[in-house]
Amino acid sequence: MSNRLEGKVLVAQGGGPTPVINQSVVGVALEARKFSQVTSVYGAIHGVRGIIDENFLDLTRETTHNLEQVSGTPSSGLLSTRDKPDEEYCARMFKVMQAHDIRYFFYVGGNDSSDTVRIVNEQAKEANYELRAIHIPKTIDNDLEENDHCPGFGSAARFVSQAFAGVNLDNRALQGVYIGVVMGRHAGFLTAASSMAQKYFDEGPHLVYVPERAFEMDKFLGDVERTYKQYGLCTIAVSEGISDPQGVAMITKLLGTEERDSHGNIQLSGTGALGDLLANEIRSGLGIKRVRSDTFGYLQRSFMGIQSDRDAREAREVGEKAVQYAMWDNVDGSVVIRRPVLNYSVDYDLVPIEKVAGKTRHMPDNFINAAGNGVTEDFKNYCRPLLGSNLPESHRLRAPKVPKILHP
Amino acid sequence: MSNRLEGKVLVAQGGGPTPVINQSVVGVALEARKFSQVTSVYGAIHGVRGIIDENFLDLTRETTHNLEQVSGTPSSGLLSTRDKPDEEYCARMFKVMQAHDIRYFFYVGGNDSSDTVRIVNEQAKEANYELRAIHIPKTIDNDLEENDHCPGFGSAARFVSQAFAGVNLDNRALQGVYIGVVMGRHAGFLTAASSMAQKYFDEGPHLVYVPERAFEMDKFLGDVERTYKQYGLCTIAVSEGISDPQGVAMITKLLGTEERDSHGNIQLSGTGALGDLLANEIRSGLGIKRVRSDTFGYLQRSFMGIQSDRDAREAREVGEKAVQYAMWDNVDGSVVIRRPVLNYSVDYDLVPIEKVAGKTRHMPDNFINAAGNGVTEDFKNYCRPLLGSNLPESHRLRAPKVPKILHP
Repeated sequence: MSNRLEGKVLVAQGGGPTPVINQSVVGVALEARKFSQVTSVYGAIHGVRGIIDENFLDLTRETTHNLEQVSGTPSSGLLSTRDKPDEEYCARMFKVMQAHDIRYFFYVGGNDSSDTVRIVNEQAKEANYELRAIHIPKTIDNDLEENDHCPGFGSAARFVSQAFAGVNLDNRALQGVYIGVVMGRHAGFLTAASSMAQKYFDEGPHLVYVPERAFEMDKFLGDVERTYKQYGLCTIAVSEGISDPQGVAMITKLLGTEERDSHGNIQLSGTGALGDLLANEIRSGLGIKRVRSDTFGYLQRSFMGIQSDRDAREAREVGEKAVQYAMWDNVDGSVVIRRPVLNYSVDYDLVPIEKVAGKTRHMPDNFINAAGNGVTEDFKNYCRPLLGSNLPESHRLRAPKVPKILHP
Repeated sequence: MSNRLEGKVLVAQGGGPTPVINQSVVGVALEARKFSQVTSVYGAIHGVRGIIDENFLDLTRETTHNLEQVSGTPSSGLLSTRDKPDEEYCARMFKVMQAHDIRYFFYVGGNDSSDTVRIVNEQAKEANYELRAIHIPKTIDNDLEENDHCPGFGSAARFVSQAFAGVNLDNRALQGVYIGVVMGRHAGFLTAASSMAQKYFDEGPHLVYVPERAFEMDKFLGDVERTYKQYGLCTIAVSEGISDPQGVAMITKLLGTEERDSHGNIQLSGTGALGDLLANEIRSGLGIKRVRSDTFGYLQRSFMGIQSDRDAREAREVGEKAVQYAMWDNVDGSVVIRRPVLNYSVDYDLVPIEKVAGKTRHMPDNFINAAGNGVTEDFKNYCRPLLGSNLPESHRLRAPKVPKILHP
C-alpha cells in the first residue's frame, strides 16, 4: 500500500541546464498524477527561488502532449537558479510550502542542488514539517557520487564527440594545432568524451587533459611538439578546470584575475580566455603558426537537436523513480543510476542524500592513461553506450594514389 | 554532341571546409565518369598545392558506395589549402597537368579559390595549354557574387540556428547577457541566420550585428541596456568581422594586435577574443554581472551530423552541372545558383569567372533593419528554405500560474 501523506507535489530544477533535464520533470509530473494522495503537481519557476517568490505553474493543468514536447526540448523548462538556501531561506520556503500544502519536493540538479535537498531535508525535520524531499540527478559534468553516470552527460558527451569528429576533419583539411576547451570544473568525463570521436588511427584528440591530473606547461608543450611532428597536426581536448600541481586553476594563473559565481566557484565558462592563452603558449613556445582554439561553451549543454536517446530515457526514468520512492516507500534521498553490466543495462536505487550532497566524483584512475594526457580503453567502453544510437560517422576516400610522373 | 577534348578530369577543394563540400567533389566524380572522353578522374590532395606536389588520388578506382559515404561527411575529404597561385605557380601546375594529361580542372571553393580558377584560366590560355577550368561555389559565408546563395551556407546556417535556439533556452534558465560570435569576415549572412532560432516573441537573438553596418560601441551598449531592461536578459549575435565606422576591425581595435593568414586576411576565427572583449565592455559599461560569450569557431563549419538536406542536394548538383558545362559546352566559368521563386526552386547557370572571382557579396539593405542591429522578415523568408527539413523545435510549458497565497 502506498504512503497516504496527502498534499501537493512540487518539482523544480537547479543549476546548469542539460539537454535532457526536462525529461526528469516530465517523469515526475506524469508519474505523480497516478497517485490519488497527490492533489496537484506544481512546478517552481527558477528553482528554490521560485518557492520563496511563490512562483508556481500548475502542471496538473498542462496537457500530456505538451509535457512530452517539452521533455524533448533542451535546457530547464521551469528555468533555474544558482541560489543555495541557508536556514533562513529554508524557513521562508516551508512557510510557502505550508500555505500551498506541498508535501513532496523533487529537485532536479547536480552537486550543489543535491546539497540544497540535504539542507531542506534537515530543516524540514527540525521544523517538524512533514515533507518528502528527493534529489533527482542531472549534470553534464557526470560528477555525482554513487552514480555510474548522470542524466545529461550522455547527450553532452554526444555533442562533444560529434564536435571533435568534425574538428578532426577540419584540422586535417587545413593543418595546424587545434585546442577544444570543454566544460568540467573538477571532473574530466565530458572532456574525455572527445576521445569517442576517433575513428581512424591517426585521428584526434591526440591529447586529452582533465582536471584529475595536474597540468604542467612544459609537459604540455612537449606533448604537442611530439604529436605535431608525428602527424603534421595536433588536436587537443582540455577541461576548463585544469589546474597546476599546486591546485591553482590554469585560467587564474594565466589570466591573473577571476570572476566567481554565487557558490564561490571561479567563472570558467562563457569566456574563450583559457583556449586563447594555451594557443599563445604554443605559438610562442613551439613556433607553430597555425594554432586555433574553440571554447565549446554553452552549446555543449543546450544545443538544440543533439540528444542521446538512451540519456533521454534514463532522465525520464529517474524522475519517475523519484516519485515512486516517495509514494510507495515514504522516504527521502537521492535517486542514483547503477550499471550492473558494462554493455549495458541500468538499475535505479535511492541512497541517503548525504552520500551525494555537495560531493564531487572524479574520473577513476583506470580511465586516464599513465602519461596523464589521454584516456584508456576502459573509459571508451564506459562511455560508448551513453552516447545513444545512430551516431553520425565520418568516411574517408580510399582511392589509390596516382604514381608520380615528374617527381617519382 | 559533347565536347571531344579527351583527357583526365582533376577535381580539388580550396579554402575553408563546409559541411557539404564533399557533395560537390562526388558530384564531379560520378558525373565525369559518364563521359567517354574522360580517361580518369583524379582528386588533388590539399587543393592546388597537391597539383604542384603531383599528389593525386585516382577517384576512378574509388567505389561508388564510398563516394556516397564521403559525400555525407563534412569538411574537405580531399583536404584543402590556402595557397593562391601566381604565374610561376601556375606554370608548375601546367607542367604537372600536361604530364598527367589533365584537360579538365574543377575547383570547389569560395572567393579566393574562384580567383585561383580565374588565374589558372588566364595562364592556360597564355601557355596555349588547352584546359577547361570551372569554379564550383562553396562557402559558409554565402558571399559569392552572382549566387542567390552558396552551397555550405544552408548547413552552417542550420548549425547557427540550432545553437541559438539552445542558447535562447539556456539564457532564459539562468538569465544574463549572452554573446555568440559567428563566422563572417565581410558578409553577415551566417550571423543573420541566428535570427531563425526565434520561435517565441521574447526570444533572441534580440540584437544582431553584421559587418555590413559600422559597429559603434556606444550604440551597442545602449541597445544591450534597453533589451536587458525589457526582458531581464539579452541574447546577441555578432559577426567576427564587425568593424568601426572607419573600417577598422573591432578585434584589431580592442585587442591592438592581429595575426594574418597567407591571403593577408586578419585572423578572426580560432580565438575567443572578440566575444570576451565585448563582454568586458558590457560588464564595465553597464554594470551587468552575468555576461557570457561563446565563439562558435570551427564547429559551425565542420560539426559532424548537422547538414541541411537541401544544401546537400544543391552542393551535389553544382558539381554535376560543372562537369556538364565542361563536357557538353566546352566552356570555362563559375557555376552559380539562381532562385527564380522565393519559396522555392533553383536554377543553375554558368557565368564568366571574372564576375565571381575575388569579389564579395554583401547582405542587401532590405535584409538588415533600419537600426542596424537586427534582420528583416525579407531575410528570414530568404533564409528559411535553406536550413532544410525537420528542424528541431523548442517547446515551452503553458501550464497556468498558481495564484499566490502569501503575497497575492
